[in-house]
Amino acid sequence: MNHPTLIGQWIAGGACHIGDSFFRAHDPFTGEQMGPKVVEATLNQVNRAAESAQAIAADCRNLQKDQRLSLLEAIHKNLSDARAELEQAACAESAYPAARCAREVDRVLGSLAHFSEELRSGRCFQASEDAGALDNKPLPKPRLHQTRVAIGPVAVFGAANFPIAISVLSADTLSALTTGCPVIFKAHPEQPLSCHLASEILARSLADCGLPPAFFQILHGRSTGIGQALVQHPSIKAVAFTGSLTGGRSIMDSCAARPNPIQVYAEMGSVNPVFFLPNSIINPAALAQSFFNAMTLGNGQFCTQPGVIIGSRSEEWASFLQILSEKLDASNEQPLLHDGIFRAYQKGIADLLGNPLTNILTKPPTYGTGGGYHVPAVLAEAAAGELLSQADQFWLDEIFGPATLAITCDTDTDYLDLANSWKGSLTASIHAASENSLSTRLLSICEGFAGRIIFDGFPVGLEPNYSMHHGGPYPAASHPLFTSVGGRCLSRFLRPVCYQHPPTS
Amino acid sequence: MNHPTLIGQWIAGGACHIGDSFFRAHDPFTGEQMGPKVVEATLNQVNRAAESAQAIAADCRNLQKDQRLSLLEAIHKNLSDARAELEQAACAESAYPAARCAREVDRVLGSLAHFSEELRSGRCFQASEDAGALDNKPLPKPRLHQTRVAIGPVAVFGAANFPIAISVLSADTLSALTTGCPVIFKAHPEQPLSCHLASEILARSLADCGLPPAFFQILHGRSTGIGQALVQHPSIKAVAFTGSLTGGRSIMDSCAARPNPIQVYAEMGSVNPVFFLPNSIINPAALAQSFFNAMTLGNGQFCTQPGVIIGSRSEEWASFLQILSEKLDASNEQPLLHDGIFRAYQKGIADLLGNPLTNILTKPPTYGTGGGYHVPAVLAEAAAGELLSQADQFWLDEIFGPATLAITCDTDTDYLDLANSWKGSLTASIHAASENSLSTRLLSICEGFAGRIIFDGFPVGLEPNYSMHHGGPYPAASHPLFTSVGGRCLSRFLRPVCYQHPPTS
Repeated sequence: MNHPTLIGQWIAGGACHIGDSFFRAHDPFTGEQMGPKVVEATLNQVNRAAESAQAIAADCRNLQKDQRLSLLEAIHKNLSDARAELEQAACAESAYPAARCAREVDRVLGSLAHFSEELRSGRCFQASEDAGALDNKPLPKPRLHQTRVAIGPVAVFGAANFPIAISVLSADTLSALTTGCPVIFKAHPEQPLSCHLASEILARSLADCGLPPAFFQILHGRSTGIGQALVQHPSIKAVAFTGSLTGGRSIMDSCAARPNPIQVYAEMGSVNPVFFLPNSIINPAALAQSFFNAMTLGNGQFCTQPGVIIGSRSEEWASFLQILSEKLDASNEQPLLHDGIFRAYQKGIADLLGNPLTNILTKPPTYGTGGGYHVPAVLAEAAAGELLSQADQFWLDEIFGPATLAITCDTDTDYLDLANSWKGSLTASIHAASENSLSTRLLSICEGFAGRIIFDGFPVGLEPNYSMHHGGPYPAASHPLFTSVGGRCLSRFLRPVCYQHPPTS
Repeated sequence: MNHPTLIGQWIAGGACHIGDSFFRAHDPFTGEQMGPKVVEATLNQVNRAAESAQAIAADCRNLQKDQRLSLLEAIHKNLSDARAELEQAACAESAYPAARCAREVDRVLGSLAHFSEELRSGRCFQASEDAGALDNKPLPKPRLHQTRVAIGPVAVFGAANFPIAISVLSADTLSALTTGCPVIFKAHPEQPLSCHLASEILARSLADCGLPPAFFQILHGRSTGIGQALVQHPSIKAVAFTGSLTGGRSIMDSCAARPNPIQVYAEMGSVNPVFFLPNSIINPAALAQSFFNAMTLGNGQFCTQPGVIIGSRSEEWASFLQILSEKLDASNEQPLLHDGIFRAYQKGIADLLGNPLTNILTKPPTYGTGGGYHVPAVLAEAAAGELLSQADQFWLDEIFGPATLAITCDTDTDYLDLANSWKGSLTASIHAASENSLSTRLLSICEGFAGRIIFDGFPVGLEPNYSMHHGGPYPAASHPLFTSVGGRCLSRFLRPVCYQHPPTS
């Protein structure tokens, strides 16, 4: 395959390589530069992309259902045709195994089918009618029809941890296109080739369908200024973001301060607690194996990675922790995605281990095997009573990667107090031997902070269907009422319009 | 009837008159102080109210459907019993005629019935199930159930222009209570007695149902500091606001800057354009009468007041404007609600009349007849071509009250350019002789900025049913996806929670 040697922006249907700043991605296995040279977008290019999107916004909003369905079908076909090349690039840029990248493509294909089904059923438009009553007293009741229309140009930021499924071809991009919103995608600077190849799939699909090329545009840049300029452009009507709390909050703040504030739909990860209630651990070895899988999947780089597990002081809990730490010590180190995550992980682990209240159960960590971003999985332990007796709620700070803190409870109150300490979270998991007073009270607390509650399981590997909710109160997400995956994520980009006494045809 | 001589806060089921700052409302007819003395809330009281709401938030979230229905029924009964006294107080504080205040009570009773119906049907919870498939390859699909739960304590700010229906008993308050969210209501300082009497109806209803008294609390205050302290309290999880753009934006900014930002659902009014397309005016006299009614209803103090009308240069348009201005000149002056609106109206009219591009059609305005807040209705005129040839889009600045600017178009392009100049708006109205190329293009532009599009009618007098949308892009509302009235307004306070493999009972 011939990869490009220079990657630039894709604006209004044209490739644009003008610019005087360049960068390259890095190989997570070695930390060395790799792949094609990338041109950093200029502010002029950001403006041109935003204006091009605005210029076609009404046309995209007015697209017929058949045209939208054709676009989703074309993307399905072109992605299926080009998946090998895309998967290969994503594997190289992420250091993920081939099966993982293939699964991401399958997930995108599933989303396309799912969004097509939403369009066909029309459910996403939440239409309703009120017949009205012209002879009503004291005032006539009007005839009303409500439906939803595309909100306008959307800026989308992908996450490095899903180099295909939460990148250019994310549910964010695809849901915006499905609803008729032009998308300007800001590529992740460590995954320019994957982003570029995926953007070619979208550009080809638009061309195949005869749709405006500015319906999808992409900008590359290492500086945060590119993204900031994009979200502050008056033509942008909403933002979808997946990534860190720092990055998401910065975009939220910018968008709130605009002369005309716009909505940011940011999914920013969380510390996902897993509560093992007393007597719920029957087979410590089996549980350790399944938890090991959940904790280290994708080298722990999931928004739903279970960062804290909470158990009851007992032989079973001790045995579970011991088996788990042995498994972690025996596992091969994997590289993290990029230098930023690599450094943050080391800092997070150092803070955790330096804390007098925590105890490391795995072997002392070393970093950067082979010059790359390799890290060990880490399991630490603390006692609930000691944590709760002091002010620093450090267990609520996410460590992105394969690290988990085990908190041991001595009383039911420990469980409840810990749960009450939680901030907004994507998930909470509850393992209970049977429904009892503690599990009922814990469930109620979790309903106050979590977007998804998992019974007797672990939060990774979410299914992006209609009943899935991937979001939660801040800081898990910027708006607790919306999900970033699944059929309901279309609603973010559809604005209600009510028609009063519309002409009957 | 015995009215209280001193009005204080209602916090956690107790009246609280502690404080060292007092104020009174003013009679709009005379500008003189009137009614009981009101104690300004203290910051301690704000904190105590917020903490009391937080303390019962989980209990309120967990209320059964029957308990919620009983509460709505109790409010219905207690409001019906006490409506005469409430209507009398609202008339005195607003200077509205008796029939208007009675209609507001009817609207509240309608909302209660409507929200009960939403609860009975369960539609507001938008529940869904995915059965899952444990034998799915490569990964099992989980069984999922999604429903919605109350978001937590809500701060509500009412608007003076609906002293009953968008005040304590607003759809904001009632929808929050319906969904199980404790409400802290910040009373309007010019309507303390109406707010107090309505709060007694809610307190009585909670007591009748044996529900926690902190489910509804009220704070009085003239300083904006009270409201600001309230929305910044960490226990508050969302804000509903109806009022001015300045007030709403200030609350939006505060809530966006919180350590944990929360959603503000603000409805801030708009300039509601009414487009009369060429040849749509058949009977100028009849149209002038119906427009006169829409323009001056409630002395023009509606968020949906038609502030700009756009017509085509013609005999019919000229005749319509002349008959309308004669009717306005012949109508009796009415007082505005309070000094703030009174001053803003004078400033808005002065700016409009001082503008060299506009022409006043009604007689020169005088203000404050009898010492009160009386104002005349004002009609001014301008030519589209002249407006569009310069930079100051002053026609997009709302003048709250009975003022309308008529803009005369000479070409189809004038219509389209004017429509394209619009900012987010609650409504747009289109009067067309028949569907044609201009009406189709105009409709598409309106779909880009308006929340409701009215055909051959006027925007005032909205029907708060399920298909109504009362909102729009900023600055009409803070979030374009939500409505502040009608059955769908419940969704603002219900947060999705997904249950994965919940125990089957």
